[in-house]
Amino acid sequence: MTSELERLFQHLRFPSISTDSRHVDDVRANAEWLKGQLENLGLETGLYETPGNPVIVARNEKVEGRPTVLIYGHYDVQPVDPLELWDSAPFEPEIRDGKIWGRGGADNKGQHFVHILGAEKTIKQNGGLPLNVIFLIEGEEEIGSPNLVPFLNEHKDSLACDIIAVSDTGMVAPGVPTLGYGLRGITCLEVKVKGPTGDLHSGVYGGCVANPATAAARMVASLHDDDGRIAVAGFYEDIVPLEDWEREMWSKVPGTSDKDFLKTTGSPEGFGEPGYSMAERLWARPTVEVNGFGSGYQGEGSKTVLPAEAIFKLSCRLVPGQDPAKIQQQVEEHLRKHQPKGVTIEIYNGHSGKAYHNDPHSKFGKAAQAALTTAFGREPVLIREGGSIPIIQDMKEILGADSLMLGLALPDCQIHAPNENYSVENFEKGIEMSCELLKELSKI
Amino acid sequence: MTSELERLFQHLRFPSISTDSRHVDDVRANAEWLKGQLENLGLETGLYETPGNPVIVARNEKVEGRPTVLIYGHYDVQPVDPLELWDSAPFEPEIRDGKIWGRGGADNKGQHFVHILGAEKTIKQNGGLPLNVIFLIEGEEEIGSPNLVPFLNEHKDSLACDIIAVSDTGMVAPGVPTLGYGLRGITCLEVKVKGPTGDLHSGVYGGCVANPATAAARMVASLHDDDGRIAVAGFYEDIVPLEDWEREMWSKVPGTSDKDFLKTTGSPEGFGEPGYSMAERLWARPTVEVNGFGSGYQGEGSKTVLPAEAIFKLSCRLVPGQDPAKIQQQVEEHLRKHQPKGVTIEIYNGHSGKAYHNDPHSKFGKAAQAALTTAFGREPVLIREGGSIPIIQDMKEILGADSLMLGLALPDCQIHAPNENYSVENFEKGIEMSCELLKELSKI
Repeated sequence: MTSELERLFQHLRFPSISTDSRHVDDVRANAEWLKGQLENLGLETGLYETPGNPVIVARNEKVEGRPTVLIYGHYDVQPVDPLELWDSAPFEPEIRDGKIWGRGGADNKGQHFVHILGAEKTIKQNGGLPLNVIFLIEGEEEIGSPNLVPFLNEHKDSLACDIIAVSDTGMVAPGVPTLGYGLRGITCLEVKVKGPTGDLHSGVYGGCVANPATAAARMVASLHDDDGRIAVAGFYEDIVPLEDWEREMWSKVPGTSDKDFLKTTGSPEGFGEPGYSMAERLWARPTVEVNGFGSGYQGEGSKTVLPAEAIFKLSCRLVPGQDPAKIQQQVEEHLRKHQPKGVTIEIYNGHSGKAYHNDPHSKFGKAAQAALTTAFGREPVLIREGGSIPIIQDMKEILGADSLMLGLALPDCQIHAPNENYSVENFEKGIEMSCELLKELSKI
Repeated sequence: MTSELERLFQHLRFPSISTDSRHVDDVRANAEWLKGQLENLGLETGLYETPGNPVIVARNEKVEGRPTVLIYGHYDVQPVDPLELWDSAPFEPEIRDGKIWGRGGADNKGQHFVHILGAEKTIKQNGGLPLNVIFLIEGEEEIGSPNLVPFLNEHKDSLACDIIAVSDTGMVAPGVPTLGYGLRGITCLEVKVKGPTGDLHSGVYGGCVANPATAAARMVASLHDDDGRIAVAGFYEDIVPLEDWEREMWSKVPGTSDKDFLKTTGSPEGFGEPGYSMAERLWARPTVEVNGFGSGYQGEGSKTVLPAEAIFKLSCRLVPGQDPAKIQQQVEEHLRKHQPKGVTIEIYNGHSGKAYHNDPHSKFGKAAQAALTTAFGREPVLIREGGSIPIIQDMKEILGADSLMLGLALPDCQIHAPNENYSVENFEKGIEMSCELLKELSKI
């Protein structure tokens, strides 16, 4: 086993589960170990206390006139339950079938560690780093990074950078390097529909007053047309349209055809906004999804009540151009306009976050593409993602820098689940990619 | 206290809760006691075993050429939880404010017992009963009378009768005698809507496949038009229309105005099929009600899932002319026709029962009206009910006889709830009504 793999295994052996307070000492031990790794590179390394788990910041000596890259990662991991579904112990990593099996392999230890090893290799080869490098590795990503925004604000000046590199996403398929340049935003709403003061007997009272479940269903049904297009007035109006090169490229991205998505989801057929492929709908078009709907009796058999109320939870995924506050207002106005007679409604606004988007053809994007090409022997696909990573948008707003999303996790990597794994090949090529990235970025 | 009231109190002291197997001996003791009461009248009384609680049948000697009335009731009661909400012990009846407080007062001991006392009084006054009388008092009404239909079929010949009298419904208001001549039927369906094989991340996959909660909501929304009219093709086609005298009478029934129903339900406003008052909608028009709807995350806060499935439960209340099997099929066809793309659906058919309806102006109906008029000093209102009492329809089908519903429970009688109560006045006038009924029916 190489020294690099051996050290990754050490990293993976810490059960740094941030959601479980019984592991608070393990989390700290992991942070201390990681600090040591960065110090060994000769970097100025600090372990910064927060109200939660510590943040590690490491940097080389800043040289004016050189570009600065901030490399973000997180050393905390998800819980491991159900333990019995793991084929090998989650914190005793082992290699089988070309993969490293263990919690944190893909999310995110194995991914950020390639950048530490890439820096190490660069220093060994060249006696130093060719640009200013700042490592920012937090320990609370799996619990929503509650202390990172305050930390970024507090250390805004010392964390100033030109570009951010994040390896915390995926590759679309084995051997296909992937550069992510966009994420969807989000805005959430919850609606309570109220009718009678209590559940009524549906025989004695059914027919004379509105049924809140029916009323709620009618409101939900009003949100889309039959074909799946969102029917909220103005919803699509501010969207930055997909560019031709994106549609062209996405039509060829391996593992993301309509057929692939059908296989992954298990849905009987595709459904969504007409005129777009599934990848386009996921990565560049907004949604209004019902996350939950509850009313009346849901147990076995029948209970003939006319329910007193119904609730439904909505989340809208947003794309570049859309303002979460404006969308929330448009959806609320739509719901109030479509409120059926005979009920009252209450609308609660939930959390929001803007979509994130950068130009993969910028000088930084080109540097990332070049690094991926050299490391993997083929040009990367350029994609966006359907999910939301709030910290990317937070860093954009606080530090003013874009993020290059250099994902190294494969589609079957099982993050957050039993049998998390990370490709040995991607680990090795990831180190190479990191070296190339530092070199490419230094030329800017 | 009169001997009549004293004996009702004895009846009420038995905790004959049929839903709770710990009370099986109390139920039997109550049946034995009731058998004694009927034997004391000189009736031929049998306690018939069933797989559950015994059925009591008591009869006078049958005289050919005389009409036969069957008087139905039940001696079992509902549970009493939550006990702490009772102002006096449920099985220690007492009189306060002109009411008898205790479990079973209104439902149904106090109501069927007036007929036993009416027969007793008639026998005392006239030396016998002027017609053939059969008492049929079961002990499983509160658990759905599972053994009564087999019992009726087995004893079909000996239970043959011309008319049935049932006091197990309500009076619309104090002092307003009420004759019920109709009940709605019912048919139930449950629908499961399936999309992806498991819950999906609404960011990663939202937009490319159908959301089963949205699909289910669209199906539910298709069941009515904006104004509350049922949109299922053919749903209304077989309905026997309301007669003019019914609309005329119902517009004047005390306690059943739109305002009264709004107060009782607590709904912000009325809603339902246009062109009908609330009473008309409840008593003579059918419904499609959602009894339950469940999908995805319903807890606190947000969980951004695209749910794998949604379920909803429907019950249709039916009116005379509608065939439950046909309605079930129409609703199923409607749902399949309105099934959104991208999901599969499974429809489960639940229980069904026809609407019940008789002519309150028949010779039997007129006898009942006369008895109520004499006992209460004013003409009864003639109403139907929105709920379903399957045993009434069963008796119609097996014994071929209609039921006169001579309700004596007041709107605030709290059946099935703490502080069940029964008006002393209705108890006394009920005995009088029973005597008059026997007399009037004997003239037929």
